[in-house]
Amino acid sequence: MPQISLSRRLRRTPFSDGVEAAGVKAYTVYNHMLLPTVFESVEADYRHLKTHVQVWDVSCERQVELRGPDAARLMQMLTPRDLRGMLPGQCFYVPIVDETGGMLNDPVAVKLSEDRWWVSIADSDLLLWVKGVANGYRLDVLMDEPDVSPLAVQGPKADELMVRVFGDRVRDIRFFKFDMFEFEGRDLAVARSGYSKQGGFEIYVEGSDIGMPLWNALFEAGENLNVRAGCPNLIERIEGGLLSYGNDMTDDNTPHECGLGKFCNTHTAIGCIGRDALLRVAKEGPVQQIRPMAIDGAAVPPCDRPWPVFAGEKRVGQVTSSAWSPDFEINVSIGMLRLSHWDAGTIVKVATPDGMRSATVQEKFWI
Amino acid sequence: MPQISLSRRLRRTPFSDGVEAAGVKAYTVYNHMLLPTVFESVEADYRHLKTHVQVWDVSCERQVELRGPDAARLMQMLTPRDLRGMLPGQCFYVPIVDETGGMLNDPVAVKLSEDRWWVSIADSDLLLWVKGVANGYRLDVLMDEPDVSPLAVQGPKADELMVRVFGDRVRDIRFFKFDMFEFEGRDLAVARSGYSKQGGFEIYVEGSDIGMPLWNALFEAGENLNVRAGCPNLIERIEGGLLSYGNDMTDDNTPHECGLGKFCNTHTAIGCIGRDALLRVAKEGPVQQIRPMAIDGAAVPPCDRPWPVFAGEKRVGQVTSSAWSPDFEINVSIGMLRLSHWDAGTIVKVATPDGMRSATVQEKFWI
Repeated sequence: MPQISLSRRLRRTPFSDGVEAAGVKAYTVYNHMLLPTVFESVEADYRHLKTHVQVWDVSCERQVELRGPDAARLMQMLTPRDLRGMLPGQCFYVPIVDETGGMLNDPVAVKLSEDRWWVSIADSDLLLWVKGVANGYRLDVLMDEPDVSPLAVQGPKADELMVRVFGDRVRDIRFFKFDMFEFEGRDLAVARSGYSKQGGFEIYVEGSDIGMPLWNALFEAGENLNVRAGCPNLIERIEGGLLSYGNDMTDDNTPHECGLGKFCNTHTAIGCIGRDALLRVAKEGPVQQIRPMAIDGAAVPPCDRPWPVFAGEKRVGQVTSSAWSPDFEINVSIGMLRLSHWDAGTIVKVATPDGMRSATVQEKFWI
Repeated sequence: MPQISLSRRLRRTPFSDGVEAAGVKAYTVYNHMLLPTVFESVEADYRHLKTHVQVWDVSCERQVELRGPDAARLMQMLTPRDLRGMLPGQCFYVPIVDETGGMLNDPVAVKLSEDRWWVSIADSDLLLWVKGVANGYRLDVLMDEPDVSPLAVQGPKADELMVRVFGDRVRDIRFFKFDMFEFEGRDLAVARSGYSKQGGFEIYVEGSDIGMPLWNALFEAGENLNVRAGCPNLIERIEGGLLSYGNDMTDDNTPHECGLGKFCNTHTAIGCIGRDALLRVAKEGPVQQIRPMAIDGAAVPPCDRPWPVFAGEKRVGQVTSSAWSPDFEINVSIGMLRLSHWDAGTIVKVATPDGMRSATVQEKFWI
């Protein structure tokens, strides 16, 4: 595997010193920032995540902050999800679409108050879209990337570890809700969320200076819980059906193609820029859709480009994420399949770098 | 040095097969795409670039295409450079600024015709800003990322190699101009430009399918010119004062701070979104500016974060790019310095990871 050349442009995080001391072996780049991908090995990290508790540097989930009288209006312009019922203290997963209904990002929106929002973004410069729109529509809103770096605590022992640092009250946080907790005199938003299916939290660390103190506090408190540095795990996130913007979907795709129709209220999301473009697909449904797929045979190589999917001679889709699952003893995969071939049980062929493999469309993701 | 984890999100290019066969050792990520950084070693690549000719996969210079009746108006909204005198066939280096005058990108604009432009971008999702603005102002323009991947041919033997593939007429292309040339029945724009000071060309390869045929044609034609796969070289680009967006400047900086005031015609660039914000700085000048700096002592480690610059106890700037230059036997560097300490000959201290080093502000870059 080639190396990564470090430069200021691939930004370090408030936790990078901790990540390096923990022996990070590989990175990817996400929102112009370093995101660890491997500590011991992808498989060893996977087993540990499912058994113990990990601390993840996910600073690369940068925040786009919207602040001001038009903040809520602008937020609704960005997404086909109807936000009228959303209360401060809630987190909503919101597909963001352009004027054609193409996905620009799939962030979590955090409503701090009526006129203050954080949008915790996937890998695209969403701030540029937001600023362009606000400028063109002359909205009364301030937008920037604040000094906020999420730190995730994930795994079956996440509650136990968090209680030791933030107190018993963390147990009361419900899924996709957040509350404020004090650490070294600072109030931090702590949400029950995260990019795994093992349970856990995301701490919105406001102020880079308390990054390493918090990192160290978590490791000290978790010593006898076998806490380790970790990162979003390729195998576990495919098993759990957690999509990755840029991998499993791009701006070519509508939310409906990505199986995110349930997060779209296209009829009532008045003001959403892509609403007109999505009305027809919302009514008639998409012609292709993301599906879980199991690829037969031995472990596949890394999926570094779309693998075409065939039915006979006809191309019917592509696989965009794939990994060998030790727990399910199959290559768990995410693909985009045409309507004609997306039913569970359909058998297709996937052109992997190791040759054609048989694959079966699944009813649902694994965990 | 850690490894890079490959995935579809870090997009391959039409030339990736050639880059891998040439033994690429390291990558960076640029516009969500793989950009090679090392083949033999940074120093060996440098020497070869200055002596022979290299073929560079710079597909990551993605194009933002603007097409339609409002294309020229939109292009002028993006930049404080006055574009009224620009003719089809010309390339202009254009700072792109937001409403506060902060740099969003520093691309080369290629004017194909009055109503069709390519913006050959640095590392930010400029398409999102452009689409947001066009949507807000209801402009009549189509915008997308076309299937165009620049391939650079750089080095003292670049003319000789290009003549062998495209014919004698390439010698007539003047600096920052382009003309159309045929390759395998396709018309390709070929510009005399590139991210080195060794001379050469950038071929705007339209259509991924002819990527490897062109790559192979260049290597076959250049065998006795000692042609090699190369990439933008850290040492040579610092010697030449070629700035890197994200490294040497960010959206915190105005073009004037980046020494790009000469590309700003703030008074006459009517329509530029950041014009109001830049009028004062254009008149009074910036309070900090990018300067060449020479850091004393042995080779510095990689500059993966800003290195603070001090005069006594006072912080007066930062170094953002630095490398040992074999030709000038000094650590050639790029820094942002306060007005009080930017005069050539000023001696300052730089906090490198190896400790405090003395450094001298230079009159000009080295090549």
